[in-house]
Amino acid sequence: MNYTAALAILCCLFICRLKEAEGADKKLRFGENGEFRILQVADMHFADGKTTRCLDVLPSQYRSCSDLNTTSFIQRMILAEKPHLIVFTGDNIFGFDSSDSAKSMDKAFAPAIASNIPWVAILGNHDQEGSLSREGVMKYIVTMKNTLSKLNPPQVHLIDGFGNYNLQVGGVEGSSFENKSVLNLYFLDSGDYSKVPFIPGYGWIKPSQQLWFQRTSQKLQKEYKRAPLPQKQSAPGLAYFHIPLPEYASFDSSNFTGVKQEPISSASVNSGFFTTLVEAGDVKAVFTGHDHVNDFCGQLTGIHLCYAGGFGYHAYGKAGWSRRARVVVANLEKTENGAWLDVKSIKTWKRLDDQHLTGIDAQVLWSKSFSGNRRKRDDGGS
Amino acid sequence: MNYTAALAILCCLFICRLKEAEGADKKLRFGENGEFRILQVADMHFADGKTTRCLDVLPSQYRSCSDLNTTSFIQRMILAEKPHLIVFTGDNIFGFDSSDSAKSMDKAFAPAIASNIPWVAILGNHDQEGSLSREGVMKYIVTMKNTLSKLNPPQVHLIDGFGNYNLQVGGVEGSSFENKSVLNLYFLDSGDYSKVPFIPGYGWIKPSQQLWFQRTSQKLQKEYKRAPLPQKQSAPGLAYFHIPLPEYASFDSSNFTGVKQEPISSASVNSGFFTTLVEAGDVKAVFTGHDHVNDFCGQLTGIHLCYAGGFGYHAYGKAGWSRRARVVVANLEKTENGAWLDVKSIKTWKRLDDQHLTGIDAQVLWSKSFSGNRRKRDDGGS
Repeated sequence: MNYTAALAILCCLFICRLKEAEGADKKLRFGENGEFRILQVADMHFADGKTTRCLDVLPSQYRSCSDLNTTSFIQRMILAEKPHLIVFTGDNIFGFDSSDSAKSMDKAFAPAIASNIPWVAILGNHDQEGSLSREGVMKYIVTMKNTLSKLNPPQVHLIDGFGNYNLQVGGVEGSSFENKSVLNLYFLDSGDYSKVPFIPGYGWIKPSQQLWFQRTSQKLQKEYKRAPLPQKQSAPGLAYFHIPLPEYASFDSSNFTGVKQEPISSASVNSGFFTTLVEAGDVKAVFTGHDHVNDFCGQLTGIHLCYAGGFGYHAYGKAGWSRRARVVVANLEKTENGAWLDVKSIKTWKRLDDQHLTGIDAQVLWSKSFSGNRRKRDDGGS
Repeated sequence: MNYTAALAILCCLFICRLKEAEGADKKLRFGENGEFRILQVADMHFADGKTTRCLDVLPSQYRSCSDLNTTSFIQRMILAEKPHLIVFTGDNIFGFDSSDSAKSMDKAFAPAIASNIPWVAILGNHDQEGSLSREGVMKYIVTMKNTLSKLNPPQVHLIDGFGNYNLQVGGVEGSSFENKSVLNLYFLDSGDYSKVPFIPGYGWIKPSQQLWFQRTSQKLQKEYKRAPLPQKQSAPGLAYFHIPLPEYASFDSSNFTGVKQEPISSASVNSGFFTTLVEAGDVKAVFTGHDHVNDFCGQLTGIHLCYAGGFGYHAYGKAGWSRRARVVVANLEKTENGAWLDVKSIKTWKRLDDQHLTGIDAQVLWSKSFSGNRRKRDDGGS
């Protein structure tokens, strides 16, 4: 299928999705089937398109392989999953190999824009390595068509990084939860590289960002528990950023779903964001990219820590090990008389870029019936 | 020596210190000998005084041992070290065994007040277990005589805990550094117990406190590098709080000075304050209490992490292992013609509550000539 034909099909197919999404500048909400579906695209590493070659593919694939394979994979994923939101979790472009960062982004995000599905992007550690600065890249993204990305929240205090924002997902139109955010999405800039002489390696989420997240989460939880329709529990939240937290290293194959084929490339220090997430209490899962050949989800202290697995073809990977994407689906509870309520469960799976877009590793991330407050254990001694 | 006599001697002896300290409500500054000396008193666990018995002392000591032994030890330490500032690092009173929290504090801090030396206190995890809340304890402390303690900084944002503040120590009066803060002291409330259902154990320093620390440190460093007398390096800083950071567990006897006789009772999660300290760059050493039979100092990523060792007699300890206190001394650089400049070195030692107040484990924590920016190593891969 050529590029123009694929775009035409996408445009037709998602004319109905347009209504659900209510246009990209309006509020996100659950579909009339009580579902909200998110496609995560991690590490596209897009450069110049057709002339940018693939890395780590089989010799038989190499000759015809370029950035356009990444484009085609997004198009196929959109057709297969019909997401309500597409989340690009950084290293969207590979700045070093891009002739023009803006043009690379135009090409990289084109399938999302063409689909008319709302989309967001956050920054990785490579996005700023081309003709635009980190701020420049994010400022460009927020002007693009159909995106809900934001540069930063309205400032109560100055915030580190570019692209820290949250999105609320309303209940089904016409339902009692129509005007409540039943699912909260947090997007953060996990930085690029350490700027501190004594600390080597990657960046991390700073106190200013954590305070913003904490205050936002508190505000949303308070609103959810307030009239009209006051709720006892908080609405579940999902957090997306690029660089995995140090706590991703807590797992082995005995307690995660997926694979770990390389070390966890978190920052070399712990900046405490996992603690802040646990304390906030609403975020049920974290989704990162960065390590292309890790794709697992493991649960720690009530929070799932998930990789998407590498998506892009101009990014390191493993020849013969398919590029992949992660899908998250939240489903609402339904009353006996068919009315939609709040979120009942959140599931995830991945799809491989093979002939059938094979789905793998389906798992439940959170379920209302299984949640509840475990009792606090104070084992302090001194 | 009885209590009244000791107080009288203290009053006489430190009449000269009064001038250096310029009264407790004025700015701290280095003495005319180019020295600033801090006495740290950790975990007094004071309750009702004479009727409150000692824990973990030898059978021969038990009969006559009470909170007054703690009082006597402070008096002797003040006489021996003549500090410019006394820092009480939490668990100052043991609320559970105190009939009246305010009266316990009156007694606990009495030797410091009588000495006319400026003093500060921060909260531990036991201070609020009596008749006053955590806020109530700190509010009481800030009204006491000669204290430089503060409830919280003037708020740019709401801050967690009670007793987060900083103090500046000016250069020698009449020297070129007279109006610059050449040593910065940070005091933080490390909390009591986790309030989060899924996180057991002790409290931790929250993002709001870390952001305050970060902004304060940035402001002080900027001022130090500004005219008049603009400096190239930042002035060294010292941080005091009660509960050790998880990074205290990074050491063993091969790389610390002192002893580790019990596990590190940090919070069960890492809230990232060590990362924030390293990033800020000015703090050269951290001083905590909490674990009474650990008294070591170890260096990690350019920052010394130090315990004081248990001071109080109504606190668990180890019979036959002396109660102890930590002293920190900062010394200024002197020009060839005898003028005092900025801080040249920071040293520490401990003193044991034995007949001779034996000094042990003297070590250099920081020295201007040995500092400098190691080159950043960016070993990021993906």
